[in-house]
Amino acid sequence: MFGSPGRMSGLVLRCAQWLFAAVSIGFMVTAPGFFNSTAFCYLIASMGLQILWSFGLACLDLHALRMKKSLRNSVLLCLFAIGDWVVSTLSLAAASSSAGVAILYSRDLDYCRSPPYISCSKIEISVAFAFISWFLLGLSSLVTFWLLGTV
Amino acid sequence: MFGSPGRMSGLVLRCAQWLFAAVSIGFMVTAPGFFNSTAFCYLIASMGLQILWSFGLACLDLHALRMKKSLRNSVLLCLFAIGDWVVSTLSLAAASSSAGVAILYSRDLDYCRSPPYISCSKIEISVAFAFISWFLLGLSSLVTFWLLGTV
Repeated sequence: MFGSPGRMSGLVLRCAQWLFAAVSIGFMVTAPGFFNSTAFCYLIASMGLQILWSFGLACLDLHALRMKKSLRNSVLLCLFAIGDWVVSTLSLAAASSSAGVAILYSRDLDYCRSPPYISCSKIEISVAFAFISWFLLGLSSLVTFWLLGTV
Repeated sequence: MFGSPGRMSGLVLRCAQWLFAAVSIGFMVTAPGFFNSTAFCYLIASMGLQILWSFGLACLDLHALRMKKSLRNSVLLCLFAIGDWVVSTLSLAAASSSAGVAILYSRDLDYCRSPPYISCSKIEISVAFAFISWFLLGLSSLVTFWLLGTV
């Protein structure tokens, strides 16, 4: 199945997850004054957690591919499914709360074109990358949960 | 299984979902000035959708219970699983974005004790109910997805 743990598609999916999360952090930390909003700090923390999780699983996938081992046992799949679900929920919450604040700044308070001149474009790009990263993790989560039901 | 469609526990779970969503809308619309933030308007729309979905499925559960029919067929379960997943994702996004804005108002901008004196307590209660409603829908979503894997 596409995106299963221990397969090439799974490895590509995991690498894409931590890469997009890293790009999201990169754009956020270069936006001046991001630390004034709790939601943006939470986004950085959550994307950091997602990098750790996805990078760890990418290493495990690579190891399984090189050793030609199967990762399809119920204990491992259960661990992956719970981890994926928790991390993807936290990522979606972080991306959404940041999106809420970004929309408030740009549309409702108009802080992008008037003082304090917040760098909205960088924040919006960071949030977009966080959503892409969450979507890819959600895909992995669904695949793992499905496999767990069929093991 | 607890919370399965067509069982008493499933019916109770669905009723709790739309009741909590309704309470969340109730607190939000009574908070003065909520319409100034896009995130709060989105919360109301999303909770409205959740009420429609959960109320509809509660009626279906009630019908199945009264007629002693089973709802455990793969087409229906697939429909419930996809619907639950979409609605719960939208609810979590709405609750999180509202939480992000509520924290910005109360902690970062201090709008609760200084002008424009936003009614933060009502907004916070509304967000808390939205999170409870999302959690219950997430539970239903997991149960349905699990049942779909075992049918």
